[in-house]
Amino acid sequence: MRDVCVVGVGMSQWGEVWRKSLRQLFVDAALEAINNSGVDRLDSLYVGCMSSGLFVGQEHVGALMADYLGMPGLPALRVESACASGGLAVRQAFIEVACGMSEIIMAAGVEKMTDCSGSDATFALATAADQEYEVFHGATFPGLYAMMAHAHMDEYGTTREMLSAVSVKNHKNGAKNPAAQYPFEVTPEQVAKSVMIADPLRILDCSPITDGAAAVIVTTEEVAKKLGKPYIKVLGSGAATDYMQLAQRDDMTTIKAATLAAGRALKMAGKTIKDVQFAEVHDCFTIAEIVLLESIGLYEPGKAGPATLAGETALDGKFPVNSSGGLKSKGHPVGATGVAQVVEVYKQLTGQAENGRQISGSPKIGMTQNMGGSGASSVVHIMEVA
Amino acid sequence: MRDVCVVGVGMSQWGEVWRKSLRQLFVDAALEAINNSGVDRLDSLYVGCMSSGLFVGQEHVGALMADYLGMPGLPALRVESACASGGLAVRQAFIEVACGMSEIIMAAGVEKMTDCSGSDATFALATAADQEYEVFHGATFPGLYAMMAHAHMDEYGTTREMLSAVSVKNHKNGAKNPAAQYPFEVTPEQVAKSVMIADPLRILDCSPITDGAAAVIVTTEEVAKKLGKPYIKVLGSGAATDYMQLAQRDDMTTIKAATLAAGRALKMAGKTIKDVQFAEVHDCFTIAEIVLLESIGLYEPGKAGPATLAGETALDGKFPVNSSGGLKSKGHPVGATGVAQVVEVYKQLTGQAENGRQISGSPKIGMTQNMGGSGASSVVHIMEVA
Repeated sequence: MRDVCVVGVGMSQWGEVWRKSLRQLFVDAALEAINNSGVDRLDSLYVGCMSSGLFVGQEHVGALMADYLGMPGLPALRVESACASGGLAVRQAFIEVACGMSEIIMAAGVEKMTDCSGSDATFALATAADQEYEVFHGATFPGLYAMMAHAHMDEYGTTREMLSAVSVKNHKNGAKNPAAQYPFEVTPEQVAKSVMIADPLRILDCSPITDGAAAVIVTTEEVAKKLGKPYIKVLGSGAATDYMQLAQRDDMTTIKAATLAAGRALKMAGKTIKDVQFAEVHDCFTIAEIVLLESIGLYEPGKAGPATLAGETALDGKFPVNSSGGLKSKGHPVGATGVAQVVEVYKQLTGQAENGRQISGSPKIGMTQNMGGSGASSVVHIMEVA
Repeated sequence: MRDVCVVGVGMSQWGEVWRKSLRQLFVDAALEAINNSGVDRLDSLYVGCMSSGLFVGQEHVGALMADYLGMPGLPALRVESACASGGLAVRQAFIEVACGMSEIIMAAGVEKMTDCSGSDATFALATAADQEYEVFHGATFPGLYAMMAHAHMDEYGTTREMLSAVSVKNHKNGAKNPAAQYPFEVTPEQVAKSVMIADPLRILDCSPITDGAAAVIVTTEEVAKKLGKPYIKVLGSGAATDYMQLAQRDDMTTIKAATLAAGRALKMAGKTIKDVQFAEVHDCFTIAEIVLLESIGLYEPGKAGPATLAGETALDGKFPVNSSGGLKSKGHPVGATGVAQVVEVYKQLTGQAENGRQISGSPKIGMTQNMGGSGASSVVHIMEVA
């Protein structure tokens, strides 16, 4: 297997983007990544997209995007694993470059979520859960994560203040990210008093519905060097799944797919979690960030909430988490999220994070953790500055 | 890149399978492939599926299938390229094994199409075309292929009799396939008098709506040898795309994505089309088989229709096409079709085709050609007996 690098990144506008279609959002991000990297060709395209069929009545998104990028003929494929689709697009590009089959690949993600009604969007998102055993009976994602939150509170004494601290931190970071959907700060009081969605989760515990795309160029180190642009190495990639139904899992207070994926990625990278200096993790709800920091082995069970409250995961903390603003503030166009996590790690490792969002001390190794549904799939990448 | 083999295959029941769900169809095919190959583990799973979100309200199909196969934890991913999803699942497994990242992978495809109304199914299938420039204006697939048929008839004098000959041949083959949805023969007269769908295409020119799944085990030659079961080598894999819109293509009488994909697969295999002895091609409509046999370079433009009429592509012809019955008779569960094509080539190359469907003369090299939409994506594999 060859060494694999990321050499250029791009983001479309994120938010309620009424004036841009699914394909236009993708093309915006893709052209920025191409320009940013300086590549003059692509050998292959992977597009992470969760549910364009239900959101905008369009499948066959790989071919469509190759076409609208002006590259009909290009091998192009959509990959789907619910909200982990983007991270898995990066992984497939990693595998194809590592394989020796292609040299220059675009891994992108896109979702256009606001072109349908709110109830349609809720239905589309719920298809990431088990339709027959969860959704049919009325479960939606805020409800599933609310159950995880209650279990974690009950088991470990996790508090409202700890949940709020995740939202406050991520909004503080996101306020410095020009790509963020909600680039403003919130206070613990605002989070704690925001409208209840599914007890104990309030609206400011939840990531939003977002239109957006992200793209990265994945290539060999040889090509990356020739391009002369800043690049990073992908040291490890790990993917895993778990039972779809929350009810079937041994323990609702941990996300086993994230544990497995992180372990596999770290093993491939030849690193331990102690070697990693910062991470983008999948904070679809505030409780998810707390559970994930424990699941990837950064904190013992029950310790991530207090650590967040103590500022350990803040931008100036000992292990910054979601310097981009995370899904909470940056937004969560579900198929694009995993790619945007790589965009942030690329920017941080190459010293290009905007508006005072740069992590101090020039970190060398970062991690992305992306997941689908209530954690039935997860993908982790370990990246190092070149 | 390592050599890659296929060592075991499985099919679920195909047809209107009211008593089996999406997940059960998959598990039926998957268990048969596992038993057939003798593998005792999987390292990874790819599931081709076009539109489970629209057909049955379920995305996140990779994780769901790993779970229901009793393998939660397994890296699992859904790949989608409309009706080429299955072929691309095989391609991704090929890449991951060739890469050295995994040894034993299942490539599967599944679609459950009859659990929704006919108009819902027609809408779901239409998402393989360009929603904004084709579907919104009323185009559906029978209409798009009817335009291709008229163009081909006009340009090359292709006739009703030639279209009918494709259907007659494929039903004759399918009548010998225990997995076929419509295992009966039809006469040219029946085809020519069947109900009109979109002029000149009649119902017996169209592949059906099908529930079904197929699975193959993709592995290294070393593992395949150890297992002691018949296996075949995948010599080449090629994928390509084209403009989504029929209206934007240079020529409606050819499918450029198939030309490109076949050329790439043959190049990787170090073969020419003359080395290939039989093929499964994507006969979603009778006209598609004629156009494809020209697009992959087997016949000059305008010559595939007369050759079909002359019996050259029959089971006992000089180049048997769709010995399985093809999409027309075997059925077309869209995400599963590309995998089922590999199942047939495996059976033919290892001498396991049932009921007198075996091609005589022990063919050594076969091809699969799978495509999405009106040809905006295509994937081709070249396989050789070990």
